Amino acid sequence: MPTQLDGARVLIATSNTGVEHDELIVPLNGLRERGALVVHAALKNEPVHTFRHDLDPAATVQPDIALGEVDPGKIDLLVIPGGTVNADKLRIDESARELVRTLAAAGTPIAAICHGPWLLVDAGVLPGMTLTSYASLRTDIENAGGKWMDEPVVRTEYDDWTLITSRKPDDLPDFIDAITDLLASRGRSSAWRRSLG
Amino acid sequence: MPTQLDGARVLIATSNTGVEHDELIVPLNGLRERGALVVHAALKNEPVHTFRHDLDPAATVQPDIALGEVDPGKIDLLVIPGGTVNADKLRIDESARELVRTLAAAGTPIAAICHGPWLLVDAGVLPGMTLTSYASLRTDIENAGGKWMDEPVVRTEYDDWTLITSRKPDDLPDFIDAITDLLASRGRSSAWRRSLG
Repeated sequence: MPTQLDGARVLIATSNTGVEHDELIVPLNGLRERGALVVHAALKNEPVHTFRHDLDPAATVQPDIALGEVDPGKIDLLVIPGGTVNADKLRIDESARELVRTLAAAGTPIAAICHGPWLLVDAGVLPGMTLTSYASLRTDIENAGGKWMDEPVVRTEYDDWTLITSRKPDDLPDFIDAITDLLASRGRSSAWRRSLG
Repeated sequence: MPTQLDGARVLIATSNTGVEHDELIVPLNGLRERGALVVHAALKNEPVHTFRHDLDPAATVQPDIALGEVDPGKIDLLVIPGGTVNADKLRIDESARELVRTLAAAGTPIAAICHGPWLLVDAGVLPGMTLTSYASLRTDIENAGGKWMDEPVVRTEYDDWTLITSRKPDDLPDFIDAITDLLASRGRSSAWRRSLG
């Protein structure tokens, strides 16, 4: 199914360290294999240090672009990986928070996994949304106005904005399938609209 | 000043990994040097892996006791070190949350540094309190009902419970001085009360 997501533009945003290896690499490769154009943006356009189980060093990855250089109008979906330290760094970056607010306001879908939803807490976009995350974020999400569920993947839509969330690396197959379903349906819808134009 | 804190019983609580080295070791040694009886409790009575800057491996330390075996009635003050991953693990442990709630209700002081205050968020003890922390916790603390300040050390008392908080390892001298001042004044007060009995 290499052309399933032909033309869908996916941005994966991370900090430069503490990134949970599989939560970056598996969506990046998986969505590319399904035909999406995937760009990896990091806070700095410098090597990104990944880890397994938060603390075991894994691969070092070169991102494609700095997060501050991203044009929010050219993204069809944003993916936010976890890693406790990664997510802790991402949430305090104003360019990351602003990107999330801009995408949410424009109705551009966001998919966040594990500790990734902390960035949504700081962007202030959770009131009205139902989501999941790594269990440690439950209190923060509920206090930020979100409704928390313990499910492998949660897809919720509110005010024309769609949010997809998962809990941990084990949920990655469900997470990537939910992203694929959303982008594929939007792609068809967009092509259908163009065919009417 | 080895006898300054003679008899004060300090508990330092951590998980078993991701502990910020200096935030465990500096208060442990510093308060012992000032005469306190310091006990280190970990979630499991197994080696504790410490790190610097969250991700650089540092010393492995043997705790004194498992957190679940602690008698809250025999503690004069609880210290909660940071380390992003440590604090993320501590906050989801029910014995840790229950210990905080029990101590707060009994008016036993707590001192938390860096990411340590996440445990206070999950224990639900922050409404009415003013505190500091690592900057990334600001939103979580405010959403949990606390008032957040950017100061090296904040000491606040509400409803007969005293909370001491600091932001990061650089603040450790101020953090330890504030703990010492509190314990020393309580010690004098207690001795004074006994002398009247």
